[in-house]
Amino acid sequence: MAELEYAQDSESCAARLGGSNPLAPTKIIKMKKDYQKLSIEAHRKARGKIEIKGKLPIRNREDLSLAYTPGVAGPALAIAKNKSLAYDLTATKNGVAIISDGSAVLGLGNIGPEAALPIMEGKAVLFKRFANIDAFPIVLSTQNVDEIVAAVRAIAPTFGGINLEDISAPRCFEIETRLKKELSIPVMHDDQHGTAIVVLAGLINALKVVHKNKESVKVVINGAGAAGIAIVKLIHLYGLRHIVICDSQGIISKKRHDLTSVKKEILKITNRKNLSGLLTDALKNADVFIGVSKGNLLKSSDIKTMASNAIVFAMANPIPEIMPEEAKRGGAAIIATGRSDFPNQINNVLVFPGIFKGAIESRISQITDKMKIEAAQALARVVKKPTATKIIPDIFNKKVVLAISNAVKRLAT
Amino acid sequence: MAELEYAQDSESCAARLGGSNPLAPTKIIKMKKDYQKLSIEAHRKARGKIEIKGKLPIRNREDLSLAYTPGVAGPALAIAKNKSLAYDLTATKNGVAIISDGSAVLGLGNIGPEAALPIMEGKAVLFKRFANIDAFPIVLSTQNVDEIVAAVRAIAPTFGGINLEDISAPRCFEIETRLKKELSIPVMHDDQHGTAIVVLAGLINALKVVHKNKESVKVVINGAGAAGIAIVKLIHLYGLRHIVICDSQGIISKKRHDLTSVKKEILKITNRKNLSGLLTDALKNADVFIGVSKGNLLKSSDIKTMASNAIVFAMANPIPEIMPEEAKRGGAAIIATGRSDFPNQINNVLVFPGIFKGAIESRISQITDKMKIEAAQALARVVKKPTATKIIPDIFNKKVVLAISNAVKRLAT
Repeated sequence: MAELEYAQDSESCAARLGGSNPLAPTKIIKMKKDYQKLSIEAHRKARGKIEIKGKLPIRNREDLSLAYTPGVAGPALAIAKNKSLAYDLTATKNGVAIISDGSAVLGLGNIGPEAALPIMEGKAVLFKRFANIDAFPIVLSTQNVDEIVAAVRAIAPTFGGINLEDISAPRCFEIETRLKKELSIPVMHDDQHGTAIVVLAGLINALKVVHKNKESVKVVINGAGAAGIAIVKLIHLYGLRHIVICDSQGIISKKRHDLTSVKKEILKITNRKNLSGLLTDALKNADVFIGVSKGNLLKSSDIKTMASNAIVFAMANPIPEIMPEEAKRGGAAIIATGRSDFPNQINNVLVFPGIFKGAIESRISQITDKMKIEAAQALARVVKKPTATKIIPDIFNKKVVLAISNAVKRLAT
Repeated sequence: MAELEYAQDSESCAARLGGSNPLAPTKIIKMKKDYQKLSIEAHRKARGKIEIKGKLPIRNREDLSLAYTPGVAGPALAIAKNKSLAYDLTATKNGVAIISDGSAVLGLGNIGPEAALPIMEGKAVLFKRFANIDAFPIVLSTQNVDEIVAAVRAIAPTFGGINLEDISAPRCFEIETRLKKELSIPVMHDDQHGTAIVVLAGLINALKVVHKNKESVKVVINGAGAAGIAIVKLIHLYGLRHIVICDSQGIISKKRHDLTSVKKEILKITNRKNLSGLLTDALKNADVFIGVSKGNLLKSSDIKTMASNAIVFAMANPIPEIMPEEAKRGGAAIIATGRSDFPNQINNVLVFPGIFKGAIESRISQITDKMKIEAAQALARVVKKPTATKIIPDIFNKKVVLAISNAVKRLAT
């Protein structure tokens, strides 16, 4: 969830922004720092965030005989005869492995596997809290693609699904593609598809509010990492046709000679008019800006160059590409961020619990593109009457997880 | 725990014993079958035996800010600076991975990874129940040594320890040896060392009861798999000098041409007198029989050939190498089995929770041989006054886990 989260070293943020930057939200940064301190205290006190709880009591030998030997030979032999009974007789086979190599953790970068553990445990807590899914954090000692694929393949029989997390681009694309081919359980890199689904859901409602239609709107995405690429693919599949994506060097175009294979590939469905230049060039007359990049890149004057009723999703964390008040000054009609202290919080936690709940309960082997689009539409529909400040449901809205899991299940049958 | 458990398909047991065998305990087999059925029902109703529980509440955005973003960047960055803080700030790093390839599960053989899951979940329940350790089942899609080593190496940063489980010999030896070398967290194959430690504990007390000393007693071990080999090594280290080990072909001796490298190696510390022949030949004048093999191999007449005050550990499951009443008829002074319906139950659950508790709490990187011997001695001492029918503590005796974990910790400092 690198692009959608708040966490970042507040000091490095301050350093990056510089003291002279008039937009530097020092008060907010200070608040983050307190959260980090409080969080360390909470983690230390509880010694982490998850625990294993036994579901059968072990009070005496009789209990042991059912939960363990000799009785446990019963479920073991039943599964040996029919593997699919693992879903009926074990918890882990209904569970999800949350797998990270620690290479692209939140906004913190390549901080390694051990440091990624608190985030993976946090995700496990969210899986349980929002979808009653037992999720198991697994962090890896390797960042080699072949070794990651081999390790996940090796442990896959344990689980009902694989949630890849915080793995840097472009390795994340190959890892996911290969695992999806090799495994018979669903595999999803949440930074890609969870993000893309929640963005599409927000976009569906935003377009409704401004009365624009998907075929004609011009969309600019800034950030060509895991999230940016996945967003392009999903909104294109949904029917958007005028998409331009930028990376740190500007618009991704045929004229560039520095493109990775993934960026070359994405040209097939973006930049129809063969634009080149900087992000600010791309923004001219655009209807939608989707930022999954870095904080404080844009000013109100940039937003003013966009089409009327512009939609701005500024999702960099903790500092958005443009602060909401600044975007508003530029004339944006709808503004969303990744933050909970502004309206329209675009957050993966709206998506991944429901996606995996639907996938595991229907025991599908693949989460298809069609399921992702249905999930986005279902999530959008949870907001009965979208408005400029309400394009996406609240995280604690109980209808969210069911809407999404049911969307997946409908397509599974 | 292949050698120490009850579970076996009751029908295949009955078939193996044959209707004509006068010792066939048909009544007991029938009971096992009911446990298996009841266990399937209990597993189905609870859908497995473990669940993930969140230790921090997620009631509102404020809670999310501490357990997840933005606060979680605090513990993540702290661990990035100092890896060892993972023990203070996460649960998983204080946890144990229970890893099996499903190749030697209970008495059921090579039933595969999915079928092994109920046993691994059972073990997780025992870890929690007896040592408050969060243990995570991981079953593997491969039985290739290199691939298993690579997979465990890859996921190792997640955990505080690795419990290898139900992996067949001789692969289990190489896998454990390599992982112990490569990893900086403790690795223990419980079928080897858990078994060896509990056997040594029982033996220490049994020798006290019959007033024999470790240097002079003659010991015969039947079964040269994971448990048998580990028992030989540990009791030799403890100071026993007259050890003979048999496999299905009889006494392991220099004269044999069918020995694996592991069996050749074990000759260095066994069979000093270069005996050859069958198990029954080995038993003549032996003081101790330790069976980790198959049911119903011995008769009272075989026990009669042993030295006076013979000690018989008949640990095959569900049917011991010799039934206690039959061993008694042969003159055995002390009889232990793996079963809870006879006195002196030798069971790994007496050992592994305390071993890992001690190892993780002291953050050691290796469980040493010395720790195993200290653990066995500590376990033996829990029985204040050993008698013929009380050489080992009860599983539910609360002193057990502390005695063992403290023994490990004493040597860790």
